[in-house]
Parts: sequence; C-alpha cells; structure tokens
Amino acid sequence: MAKDGRKLVEAITPMDADFAQWYTDIVKKAELADYASVRGCMIIRPYGYAIWENIQRELDRRFKETGHENVSMPMFIPESLLQKEKDHVEGFAPEVAWVTHGGTEKLAERLCVRPTSETLFCDHYKDIIQSWRDLPKLYNQWCSVVRWEKTTRPFLRSVEFQWQEGHTVHATEEEAQEETLRMLDTYASFCEDFLAIPVLKGQKTEKEKFAGAKATYTIEAMMHDGKALQSGTSHNFGDGFAKAFGIQFTDRDNQLKYGQQTSWGMSTRIIGAIIMVHGDDSGLKLPPRVAPVQLIIVPVQSQVQGVKEKAEELKAALSRICRVKIDESDKQPGWKFAEHEMRGVPIRLEVGPKDILKEQVVLVRRDSREKLFVPMAELESTVMKVLEDIQASMFARALELRESRTTTAVSMPEFTAQLDGRQGFIKAMWCGERACEEAIKEKTAATARLMPFDQTPVGETCVCCGKPAKRLVVWGRAY
Amino acid sequence: MAKDGRKLVEAITPMDADFAQWYTDIVKKAELADYASVRGCMIIRPYGYAIWENIQRELDRRFKETGHENVSMPMFIPESLLQKEKDHVEGFAPEVAWVTHGGTEKLAERLCVRPTSETLFCDHYKDIIQSWRDLPKLYNQWCSVVRWEKTTRPFLRSVEFQWQEGHTVHATEEEAQEETLRMLDTYASFCEDFLAIPVLKGQKTEKEKFAGAKATYTIEAMMHDGKALQSGTSHNFGDGFAKAFGIQFTDRDNQLKYGQQTSWGMSTRIIGAIIMVHGDDSGLKLPPRVAPVQLIIVPVQSQVQGVKEKAEELKAALSRICRVKIDESDKQPGWKFAEHEMRGVPIRLEVGPKDILKEQVVLVRRDSREKLFVPMAELESTVMKVLEDIQASMFARALELRESRTTTAVSMPEFTAQLDGRQGFIKAMWCGERACEEAIKEKTAATARLMPFDQTPVGETCVCCGKPAKRLVVWGRAY
Repeated sequence: MAKDGRKLVEAITPMDADFAQWYTDIVKKAELADYASVRGCMIIRPYGYAIWENIQRELDRRFKETGHENVSMPMFIPESLLQKEKDHVEGFAPEVAWVTHGGTEKLAERLCVRPTSETLFCDHYKDIIQSWRDLPKLYNQWCSVVRWEKTTRPFLRSVEFQWQEGHTVHATEEEAQEETLRMLDTYASFCEDFLAIPVLKGQKTEKEKFAGAKATYTIEAMMHDGKALQSGTSHNFGDGFAKAFGIQFTDRDNQLKYGQQTSWGMSTRIIGAIIMVHGDDSGLKLPPRVAPVQLIIVPVQSQVQGVKEKAEELKAALSRICRVKIDESDKQPGWKFAEHEMRGVPIRLEVGPKDILKEQVVLVRRDSREKLFVPMAELESTVMKVLEDIQASMFARALELRESRTTTAVSMPEFTAQLDGRQGFIKAMWCGERACEEAIKEKTAATARLMPFDQTPVGETCVCCGKPAKRLVVWGRAY
Repeated sequence: MAKDGRKLVEAITPMDADFAQWYTDIVKKAELADYASVRGCMIIRPYGYAIWENIQRELDRRFKETGHENVSMPMFIPESLLQKEKDHVEGFAPEVAWVTHGGTEKLAERLCVRPTSETLFCDHYKDIIQSWRDLPKLYNQWCSVVRWEKTTRPFLRSVEFQWQEGHTVHATEEEAQEETLRMLDTYASFCEDFLAIPVLKGQKTEKEKFAGAKATYTIEAMMHDGKALQSGTSHNFGDGFAKAFGIQFTDRDNQLKYGQQTSWGMSTRIIGAIIMVHGDDSGLKLPPRVAPVQLIIVPVQSQVQGVKEKAEELKAALSRICRVKIDESDKQPGWKFAEHEMRGVPIRLEVGPKDILKEQVVLVRRDSREKLFVPMAELESTVMKVLEDIQASMFARALELRESRTTTAVSMPEFTAQLDGRQGFIKAMWCGERACEEAIKEKTAATARLMPFDQTPVGETCVCCGKPAKRLVVWGRAY
C-alpha cells in the first residue's frame, strides 16, 4: 500500500546513488534539522529534538544510576585558563570562537566559547577538593560547545553541537581507570541496547587521542556505507590536568596528592549514526526505544462513522504500553504512509470500516515492511512483541552488515584493494610507529579507528612496514 | 536538638542584619552555586542544579501538555539579523557579548551570543511557515543566554543564565493574546502550586515592557525583605517581528497575512526567589515539590546493631512515596541536623536504638521545626500528609507576608513614608504618563511592577500628579 504513497512525497536520493545526498535529504525531509543563517550552525527541529530528548533521558538515567550528578559551568573560558594545560590548548585553540567585546567595551582578556570544559571543571575542582572525603567527584553537564569547523554537516560536524561531558576526579589511578572504562561500557551498552547500533570498544592510538589525555577509549560504529563513526569517547587524564591546575587533596595517609581525572562525552553526532546505520531509501528507520512516536495510527476512510472513534479508542489503549499518535490530518492515507515511513516510525496501524467489521487492525513494520492482521483482542500483546522484535532485528541487521564488511589485511596492496572494493573495517597488525599510521592514512585515507579490546592477532608483522607487530588495529575511513 | 548542631556549622549572617549577605551565605553554604573565574558567570553546583532539574521537568511537562514542542537554535546571532527589529536591537545591543574571531580568522560579520532568541526563531519561522495549516507553531527551547551585566549576583543577575524561552506564531491576534495569557497563567500556577510562591499577575507599563513587544505581562513575587522579583514574563508581539522578518502565510480565505507572535520565559532567577521567599536564618527552606531530597534519614547511634539496617529498611519503604536519602557520613548527628537544615530538606527523620525499641521514629519539619513521634506502622501515610502540609503552610506563610506588606498610597508623602518604613508593595493610582512613572522612580527608587489584572481602584487621582487616574499600579523596589 505504501507504494502509491511513496510517489506522492518528493523522492529522496537513493542511498547507493549518493550516500551524502541521501543523508542530507533524510535530515531535511524527516524534519530533523535545518540550516541556520549562522554559518555551520544548525536548528534541531521538534522531531530531531524529541529524539535527542529520549537519548538524554536514557543516558542521564544511566549516569545517575552510577552516582553522577549534573552541574552547569559557564560557556566562556578566559584565554589564560585555556592555556594552563599545554597539550590541551594546542589541540583546541586553533578552532575556538573568541569573544572580544562585552556590550560596547573591549575586554581586557579574550574569552573563548567552550570547545569542551576540562579547564572550567579543573578550575572549580581545585577550589572544592581538599580531602579524600571529597572524592570521588562525579560530575556531568548537558550543554552545547563550539568548534570553528570549516566544513560542516548536520549532526555529524557543526560549529555548535549539543552534548554531555562528564568530568570526574578520583583518589587513585585505579579508580580513574575503572571510571574511564565504566563510562565507555555505559556508552557501548546504551548504543547497543537503546539505539540498536553495534559498536567496537577499544583504545585510540597516541596520534588520535584527546588533547591532554593519558589514554582515550572509544566506541566505533559502522555506517551503512562502510565508513566509521566515532560514537563516544572516554578519556583517562591521569594527573596531568591536576598538576596544571593544582587539584590536590590530603589522602587518608595524610599525604598531599594530585587528583586522578577522567572525562567522557557523547553528542548529537549519534543522531547522524542512527540515520546512517538504520535508514533506507524510504527514509529514517528508528529503533523503537528511541523513537518519539513508536506507533502511528492512520485511520482509513475516517469520514465513515465509527472510524475516528475506534482510532481514539485504540490510541487510549495503546498509550499504556507505547508512545502512540493518530494522524488526523486531511491528507490521503498513501501520503500519510510515506510520511511516517520517512520519519521512521516503527509501526503503522491502519484501521478502517472493514477492519472494524472484522474486529482486526493492520500493523505494518517499518523495518521489514511486513504486514500483520491482528485481532483487536490481541493488539496490545502483539504490539509489545513486535516493538521488541523490531528493536532486536534492527540490531541484528546492523551487526550483520558490520561483520560482512569487516575484513583482514596482511599487506598494503591487500589493504588498499579491500578498501577500494567495498568500504568497511579492516583489521590489520601495526608496529606501533606513528610513521606507519601516517603512511597508511596518506595512502588509503583510512585512519586507526581503535586498538580493539579483543586483540586476537591477524598476523605477526606490521601491515605497513613489515616489522614485528605490536597491536591489532581496526582501520577505516571515517566521518 | 538542632541547637547544638547550628553552633557546629559556620553561622550565616542573620537575615535582618544584612539581607544581601544572608542571601549570598545561603547560596554558598547550601552549595547551590559558586563564582566562576569568568566575571559575572556562575557555576550551578549539583544541589542547585537538582533544583533546576525539578523545575525544568515540571515546567516542561506543563508546556508539553499545552501542545508545545522543544527545539534547539544556535547560540550565535549575526549582527545583521539582530538589527532587523528596531526596538529589539536598541534594547539588547548594548548588553551583548560579541564574537569577532573564529580560530585564527577575523569574522566578516560579528556574531553576538544570544541575549534572547526572537530573531533566530523569526528567521526560521519565515522559512517553515507558508499556510494556515502550518499554524500555530508552538516552540520552546531550554538553553542559556548572555547579557553583559555590570553588577551581578548568583541566580538573580548574571552574565550568563539558564532559562527556557517559548516562541509561538498564530494565525490571529486573538489566538496570540490567548497564548500570551495562557503561558502567564502556566507560570503563575507553577509558582504557586509547585514552588509555594504567591504571585501577582498583570501587565507591564510601556516603559517596562520587553524591547519589541506590543504588550508584556508579568508575574511578580514579594521577597522576604519586601522587594519585588519579576518571576516570569509573557509577551505579545502582534505582527511587529513578523513584518520585520517577513513571516507570512496564506490564510483559509486565500489572503496573505502576517503571523501573530508571542514569547515567554522563566529563568534560574526563580531559584533566587525560592531562597528569598522561603529561607530563614538557618538556611534554605525548600517546598517539598521542588526539593531534590524531601526526607533525609539521620541514623542516631548508628554503630549500635540494627540501626543502619532499620534506616535502610525505612529508606526502601519511603522511596515509594518520596525522594529520600540516608546521611551515612561519619559526622555527629548535630552537625547533620544543621547541614540538612541549611540545605532546606523539608523533613528530617531520626531513628536510633530507643526509637527502634519503641517502634517509632522522630520526624522534624523544616518549616515549623515541629517534632513528631510517629509509630513505624503509620510512617508512610504520615510522611505523605506532612509533605502536603508543609507545601500548603509555606504558601500560606508567604501569602500572609505579602498581604501584610502590601499597602495603598494616595499621595507621594504617604507613598514615600510607607516605602521607607517597611518595604513592600504599594498600590497607587496612576495617570498613565511616563513622566509620573519616572518621577516616582526618581523619588522613591520604586518602579511600576505591574498593572494588576485586578484593577479595583484605591483612589481617583494619580498619586504623583493628582490628575485623573487611568490605572491601578503596584509599585515596589525590585531585584
């Protein structure tokens, strides 16, 4: 039935014809975001923001369950504060926005709009931490940050973006490392359970790590075109920032020690991942758990007596188990079908006079297009089961894609041939030298996505230089 | 019992000795907020932010119930966009922060950090509104804004503050006016029901209205020192912004018309109101509905076997009906009592070996200090009742204060004498001339807080010039 409808809405570019254009079409047509008249900034529209609110609610719940508290830091960082940690300022200063005037006055010191808030948290932590009793400090903040990017794309890379940034201080190296990995796990299980996005977990190379970190851990997801998207990162700072900012505490043994710190973040980029992992040529496809609307009721022949009433009745019943809406607009059903497909609503429920006579409704799954005729008496239990099944199927399908596009390479010709054939992840051994990492990037445009926790070797020598290998690396081209 | 404890925590300045210092002491000692190293900006600490999260959750629920959707707009406004509405730019340009450089480059056009987002919403609305079918648009955004204030105080006035801003577009003047008043009512009932803060509702004078508005409505609350705090505003823009930005739609009658707009906002200022309406010399006093912790369990002689277990058992039971925590720190009970009083927790529950023997607990109300001995079997029902009673009593007490400090004046000597005697609200008639409004401010430092909806006259002539009066105005000194 959706076929007629699809003709009615403006067609989007097919994924295989132009993946980048397909992506942009979905962002626009599903009304997720729009460009603002400020270069590189975006407007997150109600439907896109409702997805972000669901992400926030679920992540926030998981953060609080693990003892974290929310705070709000200023959006401005004085230049001198940004400069306190050497590596950090080198990494971020080239891409910040500078405030130079307040009202009509020129400021004595420039302020940057935060690109990330390590320096602000450290400046506060040095004031509020004195004793081991004050530790750990487990803070998080939901806000937007600014990075002066040259080329931008909605959700994936924009001058301003929404995110959360966790910043913690611990008494020992062990606790900081535990926290770093705990939050990486939190991100991974959130992506897999809630967004149906399978991720690889591992560590970044020295070259790819965060400016100022001792170690950066990452989760990487594969998009439908085989490219990688870094979906969340967790950093262990050791005591580097603590030394730069003077965060010291008196420990149980009466010794003055530096705090051990972490930070971790996930952003609206993840909405880009949802689009590119799950979407198809009919539009967005939302996993039920994150979908603002899980089931849309489309009344058919709603002018016939009893149809509207039945739709309302079904809505009331289904509201108890899922997020449900009725499409009461005056458009044709075919139009509506196509629109809700574009918006990725997991289940469409059609009900018309004939269905009412037969005491049944029609359910159509967005993921498989499967059509189910369901007796009204079994509706609630069926909807619950179908939502669970869609969630699980979408994860399985994404995992299958990733597995089918993950290969191994033991030589550079093999590496290049595979990447040029059909993009994906390439597992290859690495000597650990930055020169090889850079050479690979130069030749193939692939970067070291991560050194996965699962280090099962695929060879003994570096894929680039042939010297003895130290680490298994997953390589790929990335967003 | 709290007396010993109060000696243990550093005393705060008594309210009657120095109200401003008392306020600052509470902000610091209750750990609501801290100064940042960025001038005029504040750090909202976990306890303060938890209060804000409760405010957000409740307001957001009320906004969504009335059909509003959340979006996210950029934080930057190009200078040319800010200048599109003449009155608006005059009102805000002198107090904005200007971004002039991105990375190492000087920008071709300066960007201001949003002081409010009318211009951004209008710029978006002109793109997405074409037909009457697109109306109304009922958008809201939670964000922070920046105003380059010279003198700042935590929550009350800061360079950056958190708020929500609603921006709507309607097809008719009537609908826009209805929306303006609906949101004013939403704010008023939120303040009264949720924060136990009584408010006056009314309209601002021309002098005091929002830059670019046709009419501004306000809710005004009285603080404990008799001064007013503007607690939320709702503006009707008519079609002024729509004309400046070209927001036009084709109506049902096929005519091209301008949209009718509103905006409305409430900010973290309201946390200042909670402090100044309810607090006392022992610290903050939180109405139960907004309190992050509604009941704190303080185990007494917790080293005695069975005490900790009983505390845990009570926590588990009470968690079902309220937000409850146990204070398990190793401080003395007296300390703990004082600390939780400082933080304004509505109910303290004490349980020790003797209580366990008697199968009872002690409840202490923060608002009245009343002590209740409650049989364990009746605990849950009693706690529910007491929380409701505290909420109602706090509102009644605040209302009583406001009534006792609201007077009338029919002449300037009377006006001045009353305001200098004991600050509060003064009801007085006004001719409607700006000159009189300015003269009153000049002489008394009181401003026209609002022209209340209840216009029952208190005289026939203007309190200032003696000419025939047009409106009743409530005057007061304000934060």
